[in-house]
Amino acid sequence: MKGMNKQGILTVVSGFSGAGKGTVMKRLLEKYQQYALSVSVTTRSPREGEKEGREYFFRTREEFERLIAEDALLEYARYVDNYYGTPGAYVESMLSRGRDVILEIEIQGAMKIKKRIPETLLIFVAPPSMEELERRIRGRGTETPEQILSRLRRAGEEAEGMDAYDYLLINDDLEECVEELHHIICSEHARTVRNTAQVKALMEDAGALSRRVNSL
Amino acid sequence: MKGMNKQGILTVVSGFSGAGKGTVMKRLLEKYQQYALSVSVTTRSPREGEKEGREYFFRTREEFERLIAEDALLEYARYVDNYYGTPGAYVESMLSRGRDVILEIEIQGAMKIKKRIPETLLIFVAPPSMEELERRIRGRGTETPEQILSRLRRAGEEAEGMDAYDYLLINDDLEECVEELHHIICSEHARTVRNTAQVKALMEDAGALSRRVNSL
Repeated sequence: MKGMNKQGILTVVSGFSGAGKGTVMKRLLEKYQQYALSVSVTTRSPREGEKEGREYFFRTREEFERLIAEDALLEYARYVDNYYGTPGAYVESMLSRGRDVILEIEIQGAMKIKKRIPETLLIFVAPPSMEELERRIRGRGTETPEQILSRLRRAGEEAEGMDAYDYLLINDDLEECVEELHHIICSEHARTVRNTAQVKALMEDAGALSRRVNSL
Repeated sequence: MKGMNKQGILTVVSGFSGAGKGTVMKRLLEKYQQYALSVSVTTRSPREGEKEGREYFFRTREEFERLIAEDALLEYARYVDNYYGTPGAYVESMLSRGRDVILEIEIQGAMKIKKRIPETLLIFVAPPSMEELERRIRGRGTETPEQILSRLRRAGEEAEGMDAYDYLLINDDLEECVEELHHIICSEHARTVRNTAQVKALMEDAGALSRRVNSL
């Protein structure tokens, strides 16, 4: 919006595995130029087709541990034998250029980022119901029965802390969900708490106008 | 959104005289069926063309004072020799039917309503700048020089408390402003704090799914 804050908003998207977060975010980035995806840094090896700086920034364990020591990561976690983290400099440079940065991450990471950057917007993506989540996970046809059970088992854990999120986004229809996510982020730009300088300037200018008219 | 709270949201719109609030709200109501305008009650006499229950509910002074005594008004104020107030029952019946109720009122009234109904959404409408406000007010051509000065003089007072509003809506282009207001209210419906029952149910269902899969 004109006259509004030009700083981008950092949005963290979490939600159930199988809720379709990845598809929603991919579509959002295709449709609107204002968004940038936060690229994570990892110590795991690139898989075929993965490109440095697109899927991940690939770093050695020593390099990653230096990033931790330098406090250069907004959050990081270790899964199995590899580190995954969010590089702060990349996110901040995108935000200062006015891009709205989207970051997909689970709740523990989301809470760490929120603590570090309190104006972070937290959005939780859920299916219309747990029955629907189960149907989607079982219906994919690309996973082993073991993988399916493991995903279903995680649902309880993934839901913990859902109430700490700012918005609950129900992914029923993909296009509707993408539009809704877009409108939530656009609307957030108009929050007075994100526009304190503009609000202050308008209040001062209004006072000055009154005084000028009164002195006529 | 599917699965979301069906209760309407009460939105209070305030802003500078001359910012175009009235036009924005009229257009919003024309475009979208989900909105209802809160109709005020007043002791002033109906003007030509005004209809009971459309512009105002017209009441005698005795009737109005009974409404005050019965605590039936969300807020009220006295201007010159007349009372103006917001009837609570009308607003609540609209909200419970899932209509989003819009109420145009100045800041003192807005604060009283927010205190009484904390989930009220507060939106402040401003022009892109005070120079633009002055241009619009002076350019109307329907007011006396006295009326113009009085409007300009009020700007400082009208701006006080702007920072207590949730959103700052800049009215530069009418259609854009209407769309933005619509998206702000739609997005608010997805706030977790407005959907505590749905969030709780999803968390419980997710826990139940995990336990069921674990016991297989």
